[in-house]
Amino acid sequence: MEEYKIDLNCDLGESFGNYTLGNDPEVIPLITSANVACGYHASDPLVMQTTIRRAKEAGIEAGAHPGYPDLMGFGRRNLAVSPEEARVYTLYQLGALDAFCRAEGIRLQHVKPHGAFYNMAAKDYALSEAICGAIRDYDPSLIVLALYGGELVKAAKDMGLRVAEEYFADRAYEEDGSLVNRRKPGAMITDEEEAIERLIRMIKERRLQAITGKDIEMKGDSVCVHGDGAKALAFVKKIREALSREGISIVPLKEIV
Amino acid sequence: MEEYKIDLNCDLGESFGNYTLGNDPEVIPLITSANVACGYHASDPLVMQTTIRRAKEAGIEAGAHPGYPDLMGFGRRNLAVSPEEARVYTLYQLGALDAFCRAEGIRLQHVKPHGAFYNMAAKDYALSEAICGAIRDYDPSLIVLALYGGELVKAAKDMGLRVAEEYFADRAYEEDGSLVNRRKPGAMITDEEEAIERLIRMIKERRLQAITGKDIEMKGDSVCVHGDGAKALAFVKKIREALSREGISIVPLKEIV
Amino acid sequence: MEEYKIDLNCDLGESFGNYTLGNDPEVIPLITSANVACGYHASDPLVMQTTIRRAKEAGIEAGAHPGYPDLMGFGRRNLAVSPEEARVYTLYQLGALDAFCRAEGIRLQHVKPHGAFYNMAAKDYALSEAICGAIRDYDPSLIVLALYGGELVKAAKDMGLRVAEEYFADRAYEEDGSLVNRRKPGAMITDEEEAIERLIRMIKERRLQAITGKDIEMKGDSVCVHGDGAKALAFVKKIREALSREGISIVPLKEIV
Amino acid sequence: MEEYKIDLNCDLGESFGNYTLGNDPEVIPLITSANVACGYHASDPLVMQTTIRRAKEAGIEAGAHPGYPDLMGFGRRNLAVSPEEARVYTLYQLGALDAFCRAEGIRLQHVKPHGAFYNMAAKDYALSEAICGAIRDYDPSLIVLALYGGELVKAAKDMGLRVAEEYFADRAYEEDGSLVNRRKPGAMITDEEEAIERLIRMIKERRLQAITGKDIEMKGDSVCVHGDGAKALAFVKKIREALSREGISIVPLKEIV
Repeated sequence: MEEYKIDLNCDLGESFGNYTLGNDPEVIPLITSANVACGYHASDPLVMQTTIRRAKEAGIEAGAHPGYPDLMGFGRRNLAVSPEEARVYTLYQLGALDAFCRAEGIRLQHVKPHGAFYNMAAKDYALSEAICGAIRDYDPSLIVLALYGGELVKAAKDMGLRVAEEYFADRAYEEDGSLVNRRKPGAMITDEEEAIERLIRMIKERRLQAITGKDIEMKGDSVCVHGDGAKALAFVKKIREALSREGISIVPLKEIV
Repeated sequence: MEEYKIDLNCDLGESFGNYTLGNDPEVIPLITSANVACGYHASDPLVMQTTIRRAKEAGIEAGAHPGYPDLMGFGRRNLAVSPEEARVYTLYQLGALDAFCRAEGIRLQHVKPHGAFYNMAAKDYALSEAICGAIRDYDPSLIVLALYGGELVKAAKDMGLRVAEEYFADRAYEEDGSLVNRRKPGAMITDEEEAIERLIRMIKERRLQAITGKDIEMKGDSVCVHGDGAKALAFVKKIREALSREGISIVPLKEIV
Repeated sequence: MEEYKIDLNCDLGESFGNYTLGNDPEVIPLITSANVACGYHASDPLVMQTTIRRAKEAGIEAGAHPGYPDLMGFGRRNLAVSPEEARVYTLYQLGALDAFCRAEGIRLQHVKPHGAFYNMAAKDYALSEAICGAIRDYDPSLIVLALYGGELVKAAKDMGLRVAEEYFADRAYEEDGSLVNRRKPGAMITDEEEAIERLIRMIKERRLQAITGKDIEMKGDSVCVHGDGAKALAFVKKIREALSREGISIVPLKEIV
Repeated sequence: MEEYKIDLNCDLGESFGNYTLGNDPEVIPLITSANVACGYHASDPLVMQTTIRRAKEAGIEAGAHPGYPDLMGFGRRNLAVSPEEARVYTLYQLGALDAFCRAEGIRLQHVKPHGAFYNMAAKDYALSEAICGAIRDYDPSLIVLALYGGELVKAAKDMGLRVAEEYFADRAYEEDGSLVNRRKPGAMITDEEEAIERLIRMIKERRLQAITGKDIEMKGDSVCVHGDGAKALAFVKKIREALSREGISIVPLKEIV
């Protein structure tokens, strides 16, 4: 019998100074991989230390979540950085976060770019190559967590890095495996039961129905979940229950790729 | 015959974005240890990569030069951080800089706090202890470069870290081995010949005449030099010639402590 | 019959980017003067516009709340700025906030420094003089809102500016009219009824019992209230009810000084 | 006899903290309008005060030069801000700079967006409309200084604001009056004599030869000059001499539009 596995990842450690964001202590026990902000689009060194300590205590895996240097825009606005800038911003944030892992005696598992940096990388091979070059030069055993089928996946594979592809349970997909633009009708899967059914089929059959109705291949390794708000937390719990019922193991990325 | 040794350290990599500061390519061949800014009081990731590459090419040792998060004040204004903040700011900057060392395949040699952070640490044991705790938890083989006789030296020794004590050739000293306040007359040794003579005696005899006239013990391991401006560069060259004439080896910190 | 008046001021507009802080819409109807953050210790231009629009709609007065350039520390850590820096940081933030007032067609009423900037000014005449110089040069009709009896009050008076003195209902006072250090036992007035009784006596009799038991003079023009959390909001409502019961008018600073 | 007039504008006040950029004292006597950085892409409050004081002493006109909040990239990288963000970033910076003008008793003459903000505005009507809305709401007598023929010119005219169109003496133009992309051969007019001849013809005949050879209309009100470096300064002096020889007055924007 085949063993089915999936990782649940969540953005964490996004508080800053006097500002608290998200609900880290509540979502941590529900996930297997944490994407930890590194001080550019969110977080500060106190928050980073706290987040790494929480991940360690809970026994979940930590990854770096580097973003654009745009705290005011939370890294969600595209900034036209050069590939060289993408490289050094990745290195800087990777090292900064890893310092807290080293101080706590844990190993960083993965790197997932944040927000607009993630979206731009998915579309731009040169940017992705620069990000992957930084990761390889820093620690070639790190896993790259990237949008399913995007340029960052290609660049990571071309460079011989381990890659995990991310699946969004609440989003519809085009026939080519890309996300349906949020502005299009039907882009969001708002029915939680439907989202969970699709997720389970994706894990077991590696297939999904595209928005056009056509059945496509989809091999996600990790599902992005959220911890901000009671509704989001309840949805993660529902997902966990359904996965458990279906005999699907929830394991960190490093046990998948 | 006893072998005399001294390290020449200089703050480097203090440019930022579109702004250039200092004269790194000219001073690098003259020194043995570079204190590289880490993006808080100066520098950015592009500058950090360039600086680490230059240090590597020249074969000099690189150290982290963490400062207060005060780019506007160049880290020269005291900021009342807590020991815990001092710890995590050190970790953050240390890791960020080390990322560029790892990517270039070199090892970080030391850590020297910058500006007001350096001055506060020299006076405050709790702050120094927090900084040293960060260094030990990150990499206990790193050397702490600190003001001769200051609290940072004590905290590093108490924690079992390697310490190098810094000597200022252009400054007068009090009887207790502390620097004479800049506002006092005679605080600066403006005569270069005198400064060099004092330096040589300090290295060979481990003694120095305090501003009061009294002869005191002084065991500096490293001399702070500057690379900004033709005069500063000429002074470093003069120091090198004098040291060479006296048979004193100019070697990096790691060969001294 | 004498008419009794008091202003209720509150720090507002302290959100930043993706981060929300405080409960501005709920506290605005309860106060008469808003101290609006200006982007240095908190806030950003979108938040500033929103806050000024809310103040305008509610018909309350807006003041600038300039702080140290320390977003990570929320302006609560002392930063050793020079008087000249204090001057230009005040001018910068004052002008920036006033731009939103001008765009909305309202007039700025006052200036109250924030956090560590406020505390340092209260103790340092030179710093206070620099802040007041900035205010006078920008608009001499602005009211300075400052700690009762502090150096900022003196500097403002010496410069001929209008000054309002701030009273803290939840704090004990020394015989000289200064705040009891928070670390001392009895520094906080935790009993709300007692705090309100003291406030009413302060308004009507201009007197207060110091922590030593001695009766002292106290002429506060404005009470600092808070809007973060249900408890804080309930306390402001209690204060309003008590003031109303006692026939004390709650009016903005400009109707008092 | 017709009177010919032109304004010479230059970006000024781009130093920051410990970093000096440009050669403000030398270029100020050569120009009529200064575009003063406002602390987002460059400058800080001390630099802003110094720059406004220098402009005042020299009797030249000052304008606000707002940019993207990207100090690390000097405002030269496009940042995908919304029109609302463009509006409030303009208001914030405009007010901040104007505070120094008010303190010195001078009036702000114009607003010219900086770098990527300028380039994006020239191409995007919605962004331009937002910028112009901010300017109108702040002070409708301000002049908008914008790229010849761009969207910012259109938006300013549509809103009834005074507009000055900027001409680049060292750049070639397409037939439609837009700048030739820098990557195309012939984009830069490197021959200074040719650049000056073209400028004089543009002023006197309001015509210019496009890169295709076709003669086009060109009605520039202001020429952008640079003060960084001896060569740039020498070129400004040459331009001034030629204009003087031709009887063309060099006057600030407010005497032109």
